[in-house]
Amino acid sequence: MSESIAQFAAQIRAGKISPVQQCMQTLHALEAGNKTYTVATHILAERALHQAQVLERKIAAGQDVGPLAGIPFGVKDLFDVAGLVTTAGSTVLQNNPPALKDALVVSRLCAAGALPVATLNMDEFAYGFATENAHFGTTLNPHDVRRLAGGSSGGSAAAVAAGLLPFTLGSDTNGSIRVPASLCGVWGLRPTQGLVPLEGVYPFAASLDVIGPFARSAADIQSVAEVLAGQSFAFEGHAGSIRVGVLGGWFAQDLVPDLQAGLEMIAGACPSARTVTLPEIARVRAASFVITAAEGGNLHLNRLKQTPMAYDPATRDRLLAGALLPAAAVIQAQRIRTWFRHLMHDVFDTVDVLIAPATVGPAPLIDQPTIMVGGKAVSARANLGLFTQPLSLAGMPVVSAPLAPQLTPNTQLPLGIQLIAGPHKENMLLAFAQELERKGLLGFPVAHSQHQRVA
Amino acid sequence: MSESIAQFAAQIRAGKISPVQQCMQTLHALEAGNKTYTVATHILAERALHQAQVLERKIAAGQDVGPLAGIPFGVKDLFDVAGLVTTAGSTVLQNNPPALKDALVVSRLCAAGALPVATLNMDEFAYGFATENAHFGTTLNPHDVRRLAGGSSGGSAAAVAAGLLPFTLGSDTNGSIRVPASLCGVWGLRPTQGLVPLEGVYPFAASLDVIGPFARSAADIQSVAEVLAGQSFAFEGHAGSIRVGVLGGWFAQDLVPDLQAGLEMIAGACPSARTVTLPEIARVRAASFVITAAEGGNLHLNRLKQTPMAYDPATRDRLLAGALLPAAAVIQAQRIRTWFRHLMHDVFDTVDVLIAPATVGPAPLIDQPTIMVGGKAVSARANLGLFTQPLSLAGMPVVSAPLAPQLTPNTQLPLGIQLIAGPHKENMLLAFAQELERKGLLGFPVAHSQHQRVA
Repeated sequence: MSESIAQFAAQIRAGKISPVQQCMQTLHALEAGNKTYTVATHILAERALHQAQVLERKIAAGQDVGPLAGIPFGVKDLFDVAGLVTTAGSTVLQNNPPALKDALVVSRLCAAGALPVATLNMDEFAYGFATENAHFGTTLNPHDVRRLAGGSSGGSAAAVAAGLLPFTLGSDTNGSIRVPASLCGVWGLRPTQGLVPLEGVYPFAASLDVIGPFARSAADIQSVAEVLAGQSFAFEGHAGSIRVGVLGGWFAQDLVPDLQAGLEMIAGACPSARTVTLPEIARVRAASFVITAAEGGNLHLNRLKQTPMAYDPATRDRLLAGALLPAAAVIQAQRIRTWFRHLMHDVFDTVDVLIAPATVGPAPLIDQPTIMVGGKAVSARANLGLFTQPLSLAGMPVVSAPLAPQLTPNTQLPLGIQLIAGPHKENMLLAFAQELERKGLLGFPVAHSQHQRVA
Repeated sequence: MSESIAQFAAQIRAGKISPVQQCMQTLHALEAGNKTYTVATHILAERALHQAQVLERKIAAGQDVGPLAGIPFGVKDLFDVAGLVTTAGSTVLQNNPPALKDALVVSRLCAAGALPVATLNMDEFAYGFATENAHFGTTLNPHDVRRLAGGSSGGSAAAVAAGLLPFTLGSDTNGSIRVPASLCGVWGLRPTQGLVPLEGVYPFAASLDVIGPFARSAADIQSVAEVLAGQSFAFEGHAGSIRVGVLGGWFAQDLVPDLQAGLEMIAGACPSARTVTLPEIARVRAASFVITAAEGGNLHLNRLKQTPMAYDPATRDRLLAGALLPAAAVIQAQRIRTWFRHLMHDVFDTVDVLIAPATVGPAPLIDQPTIMVGGKAVSARANLGLFTQPLSLAGMPVVSAPLAPQLTPNTQLPLGIQLIAGPHKENMLLAFAQELERKGLLGFPVAHSQHQRVA
C-alpha cells in the first residue's frame, strides 16, 4: 500500500481491496523482511488472518468497520497481546503467564478495524537507544543495514521504514520513539503524558513512560493517534499563524552540517521563527537519567536479586546502578522536573511550536556504535537521547519528523527533528507538521533497495 | 469574643466593635497566655495594630472590609510574614533574609480583613507530633498544662484552645493539624491536597504538605477555609442523606473506652452508617513515613552536611536517616500511594463521609510522652499520627473534630475524630460536621480555668 492510511482503509471499507489478501501479503513481506532486518519478535499470522476474515464478512454484510479498517500494524514487544507472554524484549519474563487480554490501545486499534500482525524488537526492558537485543538480535536500519535502527523501539521504526507495515506502536521514556524514528526516517509521536492509556503496557520508568505511533506521514500519525487517544485532533486554527521557536544553546550543538542547514531552512520557511534558549538543560537531562534509573531499578529490584544472570548485561548493570541510587538524588531530580515543567509552560505562553534536532546526526554504524558529542566519541546506546531526554521531563507532545531527502544531500541518510507543543496541543502540532510536509521540507521515502547497501 | 467569626466580623463591619480596641485586648491576652502556654514564637503587635487602624478608618469611610473584618489570627512559624525571617521553628534558618512578602494565604486573609497577630510554636521543621521545641520551648495543653498540645502545629491548636485567638493556621503533612486539634479539643481542617496554595510556606515533605485552619467550631473553620481557598463551600444537598462509613480494622484498635463509645454514639446518630475496612493500612502508613523522611532529608541534606549541630537532635536524626534512604524504597512507597489513592476513590463511590479516630486517646503527659499501641508504650512524638498518617497519602480533605464533653465522661480531656470525604468535597464534609455539632455530639469548650490544673 502506498496511499495514506485513511485512503487505504476507505478502499477496504468500500470492498475494493480484500483485507484477507492484503493481510496475507503483509505477513509474507514481514516474514521475508524480518530475515533481513530482525524487526519482529513474534509474527501473529493466525490471529491477524482471523481478524481479517471477520472484517471481510462484516464489510460484505454492510457493517461499519472503523477508520483503520484492514490496516495491519505491529507493536513493540512490551504491549500485551492476548495469549502471548509479554516479554519486553527479555528472557527474564518468559515464564510469566500469557496476557489474558490485549493492551487497551491494541483493543482500541482492533475496534477501529486494524489488524495486529507482529510484536517488534526493542532494547531489553526499553533501556537503551540501540535495539541491540542480546536475546532477539540487533534490528538493522533499512536505509543502511550496516547501521543501527536506534531504540528502544527500533523494531517498530524499522518495520515502517522498510515499508513492511504502515504503522506501528512504540513507547518513549527518554526518546525511545523519537530516536529510532529519526534514525530510520519515519514519523513518530510522543503524545502528551497521560493522554494515551498505558493499561497492559509493560512499564520502564512509570513516571516518564508514554506510548505512541510510528508511520510514514504526519497524516498517518494523526489517523492512528486519534484512535489511540480516543479523540479527534482536527485543528480549527490557521497553520500559518503558528508562532515558532527554534531551540538554541544545548540543542544547536554537535549537529552534522546537513542537520544544521536543514533546521535553518525550516526556520526560514516559518516567518515568525525566533531562537529560544532554555537554561540548565544539562541538569534537566541528568534529572531524566536519575529518575529513569531509579524507577527502572525499583521495578526490577526483586528479580535482579533472584535472577541477575537472566538479564542482558548492558541492561543489568544500568538497572542495578539505578536500584542503588540514594533517594535524595531522585527527589532532587523531581524538583528539577517540577521547575522545568513550569518553565516550559511559560515558554509556551510566547510560542506555539518549538523546533529542535532529534539526534546529532544519522544512524551510527553497528560495528562502531558511537556518536560525537562535544568533540568526543561517546556510546550511542546511552547518548543518542541527548536532545530527546530533556524534553521528556516536561511531559509535552513531541512529533519526531524526518527531514526531506533534498535537505540531506551530504548525509544521504535520514535525519530527524523534533516539533514540540504545549500539553494537549496535538491537533495544532500535527497541523503544523503537515504544513511543513506539504512544503516538501519534511518526509523521507521508505527504503526499497536496501540490500545493495550491505557492504 | 464568644460569637462565631462571621457574627463578630459583622459587628466589626457595622462599627459596633472597634477593631483597634479588640486587637489590643487580643494582644494583651496573647502576651499573658503565651507566658503560660508557650504558644507564640513572635507577637506582631505593631503590624496588627497598624492593620486594625487602617481597618477602622475604612469602616468609618463606609468601605467594604471583608468577611473576616477585624478577626485576629496567628500562623504556624513556617508561614512567611513580610519583614520577618521564616524560621520554621528552628535556629538553622535564623540568618536567612527576612521574607519580602506574606505567604499567599496570609495575604488572602488580610485582604478579607483579618489581622495577623502572632507566629506560633511548632516542632522544628514540622517533624514531630509533640511541639517540644528545643529552641522555643514546649507548648502546653490549655486543658491540662502537664500535657502535650500535640504537633507539629501545637502552638496553633493551643492558642485556639486557650481562647487566645479565634482561628490560626497550621500545616499538615502526616497529621500536624489533626493531631494537635484532637489533643487540644479544637476543630482543624486538612483541605484537599492542592486546593490551598503553598506559596510562601516553608516546606517539609512537599508531596504531602497541606495547610489549613484551626478554629472553635465547624462554622468558623468554613468561614476561614473559604478565604484560604478563594471559593465558597456552601452545600446545596441535604446533610441527612449523606452516606456514612465508620473505619474499622486498623482504625478501631487501641482506642481509649470514651473514644470507642463516642464513635459508636456518632455512628448511631447516622442512620446509614456501616463499617468500612481498608486493607494494608500498615503498609500505607509505612509509605507515608518513607516519603516524608526522604523528602525532608532531601530538603535539608546540604544544611545537614554544613551545620548539623544547629538542628534539634530529635529532628536531626530523623532527617539524616531520611537522607540516607535508598531510592528504590521511596519509589515503592509512591507505588503504594498510587494504589491507595485509587482505592480511596473507589471507596468514595459507595460512601460520602468516612469517620475515624484522630488519635488513640487524650494528650500524653509531658514527662511521660508515650501512647499505648498494640499493648506497648511507644514514643508519642513518632506515633501520635497512627490514624492520621495513612490518610494523608490519599490527599483527600479531613476535618478533625473534638467529641463533645458529654461523650468523654471518663477521660475529661479532649478526644478528636476525623471526618474524611472525597477530593474537593469540603462543602459536604463541613455541612456534615456542622450537623453533628448541632446535635451536640461534636465541639469542646475553650479552656478557662486551666491554671488550677497545674499539679
